[in-house]
Amino acid sequence: MSSLFKQLERATPEDTLPPTSALLDAVTYNDQGLIPAIAQQHDSGEVLMMAWMNRDALEETLRTGRVCYYSRSRGKLWRKGESSGQQQQLKSAALDCDGDTLLLQVEQTGPACHTGRRSCFYVAITPTRAHITSEPLIDPAELYGQRS
Amino acid sequence: MSSLFKQLERATPEDTLPPTSALLDAVTYNDQGLIPAIAQQHDSGEVLMMAWMNRDALEETLRTGRVCYYSRSRGKLWRKGESSGQQQQLKSAALDCDGDTLLLQVEQTGPACHTGRRSCFYVAITPTRAHITSEPLIDPAELYGQRS
Repeated sequence: MSSLFKQLERATPEDTLPPTSALLDAVTYNDQGLIPAIAQQHDSGEVLMMAWMNRDALEETLRTGRVCYYSRSRGKLWRKGESSGQQQQLKSAALDCDGDTLLLQVEQTGPACHTGRRSCFYVAITPTRAHITSEPLIDPAELYGQRS
Repeated sequence: MSSLFKQLERATPEDTLPPTSALLDAVTYNDQGLIPAIAQQHDSGEVLMMAWMNRDALEETLRTGRVCYYSRSRGKLWRKGESSGQQQQLKSAALDCDGDTLLLQVEQTGPACHTGRRSCFYVAITPTRAHITSEPLIDPAELYGQRS
């Protein structure tokens, strides 16, 4: 953990903090230069998905208010909804205590998941059995036929 | 993504799924053998923390109902609360669409964060400024003096 995040452990809501640019310098990116970002629907609290951001994606997200991830499979910035039309508007963002994970509060248009489901977390597991917890809101064929 | 998770994209809540052991075989662990696990307080919806699990940690968590992570810094299983007393009881667990992230619904005793805060996500960031969003429930010195 960076010394900056160590210092922030004792900070309070009344304290004036370093600028965001200094925090982004102190973030722990992994060896691919990425940080995991959890997207939560801001009003319902539903956890929609987890994806990855590099610093460019994070800066663009903060600047534009539209969530932009880094696609590991495509090796480039991925403006959520650019293929499906199902965008995420940023409501707020927070780093965790050791500066290596992001939590985004978002307004998700339609489904977050490429399967057409609202959330990506639909495969429930118990010690022995698994089951599907939700059905698609939209057929994914329709989702990816439609351009935003 | 494994072919099993690809098949599950079209599964419904009525379908009988393969046993959990088959799903754990199909999970995409990273090159350290780990999968990220998001812990959410089951009733309030608050996202408490994100940590990592290896397969052993995940199997133990499902079997015992007490959340066990893998500590990357200590290089061993980490039964949440073993130092602080602030345990997590598992309510339910779900894998995401491509089988590389876990979402845990938990009952968190006291603070989840090592700083004594309820959640680890307390460093809010905007394009320019940052601020602290919560204060410790318990002094961390007290938390780690106390043995469970």
